[in-house]
Amino acid sequence: MSDLPSRVDINEEGPREGFQIEPGPVATADKIALIDALSATGIRHIQVCSFVSPKLVPGWADAEAVVAGFAPRAGVDYTALWFNAKGLERALAFRDRLQVTGSIALAASELFSQKNLNRDRQGNIEAMRKQTEAHLAAGVPVTRIGVMAAFGCNFAGDIPVARVLETVHDGLGIAAEAGVTITDLGLADTMGWATPDRIERVVGAVRSRWPELRLTLHLHDTRGLGIANAHAGLRMGVASFDTTVGGLGGCPFAAHKGAPGNIATEELVLLCEEMGIATGVDLDALIDVGHLAERIVGHPLPSAALRGGSLTGFRNRAA
Amino acid sequence: MSDLPSRVDINEEGPREGFQIEPGPVATADKIALIDALSATGIRHIQVCSFVSPKLVPGWADAEAVVAGFAPRAGVDYTALWFNAKGLERALAFRDRLQVTGSIALAASELFSQKNLNRDRQGNIEAMRKQTEAHLAAGVPVTRIGVMAAFGCNFAGDIPVARVLETVHDGLGIAAEAGVTITDLGLADTMGWATPDRIERVVGAVRSRWPELRLTLHLHDTRGLGIANAHAGLRMGVASFDTTVGGLGGCPFAAHKGAPGNIATEELVLLCEEMGIATGVDLDALIDVGHLAERIVGHPLPSAALRGGSLTGFRNRAA
Repeated sequence: MSDLPSRVDINEEGPREGFQIEPGPVATADKIALIDALSATGIRHIQVCSFVSPKLVPGWADAEAVVAGFAPRAGVDYTALWFNAKGLERALAFRDRLQVTGSIALAASELFSQKNLNRDRQGNIEAMRKQTEAHLAAGVPVTRIGVMAAFGCNFAGDIPVARVLETVHDGLGIAAEAGVTITDLGLADTMGWATPDRIERVVGAVRSRWPELRLTLHLHDTRGLGIANAHAGLRMGVASFDTTVGGLGGCPFAAHKGAPGNIATEELVLLCEEMGIATGVDLDALIDVGHLAERIVGHPLPSAALRGGSLTGFRNRAA
Repeated sequence: MSDLPSRVDINEEGPREGFQIEPGPVATADKIALIDALSATGIRHIQVCSFVSPKLVPGWADAEAVVAGFAPRAGVDYTALWFNAKGLERALAFRDRLQVTGSIALAASELFSQKNLNRDRQGNIEAMRKQTEAHLAAGVPVTRIGVMAAFGCNFAGDIPVARVLETVHDGLGIAAEAGVTITDLGLADTMGWATPDRIERVVGAVRSRWPELRLTLHLHDTRGLGIANAHAGLRMGVASFDTTVGGLGGCPFAAHKGAPGNIATEELVLLCEEMGIATGVDLDALIDVGHLAERIVGHPLPSAALRGGSLTGFRNRAA
């Protein structure tokens, strides 16, 4: 049953996910310091900001200043997030510093789309058709589909596997109409419903239908099962994960307070390295960045690995 | 590969593990309130105190008052921990309220024994021979072996599987000399070195050599892998786990500060129930007890499930 990858790609989203939910304002210089520190750990993909309305997300009013301010490091891809034409336009101003690629974002739960985007399934498909056209017209490649609420939904409850497959199919239809080829599929546990067996079922069904798609799991540690879910993904051969250093962040749209962040980067790196799966990341350097993130937000972050530390020091002293 | 149990036994150790490491004094009445609240959740095994030297562990100076004070509930076993003849004597005074059974406690790391008990492997075997004799002389059954540091050690580093097997063999030798039959084996990740693949290797090796022993895993969430490790145990057919409500506690002897507690009872119960494995525990009632534990210690506990909550309410509202 096990199909462990030999190498895992980490998509660090701490700078983007982490600061949008923090109650206090985070200084632009601190956001830049975190990005620069992450760049030095061996991580090769960092999402640095959201180009969203400052009215809706005041924490990202300084997105431009952050992107202009960090020090790009060779070999590291820097990305951003946006949801509409205005956001795309803001991202395009930084094509020299950001890897600007488009994504077809859908939800496996229609109720989730309705509550958060005020769009039903068909309305969402229409919106993504238009967004894909806009991306392509701007010369932005669209190679990825993202499926939110792929493992369950606070509004709709359990999500059947068939519904996830339909949603991917919807996305592939949008891509085919636009004449683009999808290479990447992200499955997001937006509200923390995943369990290891749900990961196995969904990933297994998606992989057997579309073996050519490279899968990324976006997991939240809402109920303490995040790393167990990542491990289930690894066992199914998933080799790409969205994570946040320290477990920063959370989904501000979830229907309960205190939604915790994504799985912590250092916990996933520790798991992988201890299992002999390469990540290219220096775990001890990453843990130092986690402590920097704690100083920036001014409170402890949920990651246990930040407190437990790596096993390297113990091993070296024992040898 | 998967050999999931249909039912899992939870051994709740929060009252015992949780309060020995808290910096402030915890009122006797609060300890009793926690035990009584746990008794009402469906948990059937609760370790209520340590009979240890009040000089070494001041937090358990009130062990007698706690045992005398809780309200025993039919169908629930209450146990205690002790390490020497004096502790055994104190436990024996409560045979009407406690299930008094003996354990042969060994460590797979000789360095761990030396650092914590000032005994080498042979010295520990001698001590356990004497303790087993003392238990049997007092009419206390000895049916269990416990192996500490079974997955790694802060002093000795990685622990070979062969060393764990030798340690179990040592314990079985002590039992055979004393003429008792061992039915239960506890494997403890005392310092948080376990990973899912180490769990598979150690549990697999132990099970193939001694398939008749019922295994219990005692896991700490030192580095965020605790529930992933428990899931690996479940997949190997392990059906008994030591846990603490809220993730209370920690090992005061570990060689680093801030050693986090055991895996959180409510996270394991949530995982099991979502996977269709019965625990007999009312998860929502248990989460309420976790919040009670937080009020008692006066700070948030590490369990994410305490904040995320169960999925029951969402599912009911969605239905």
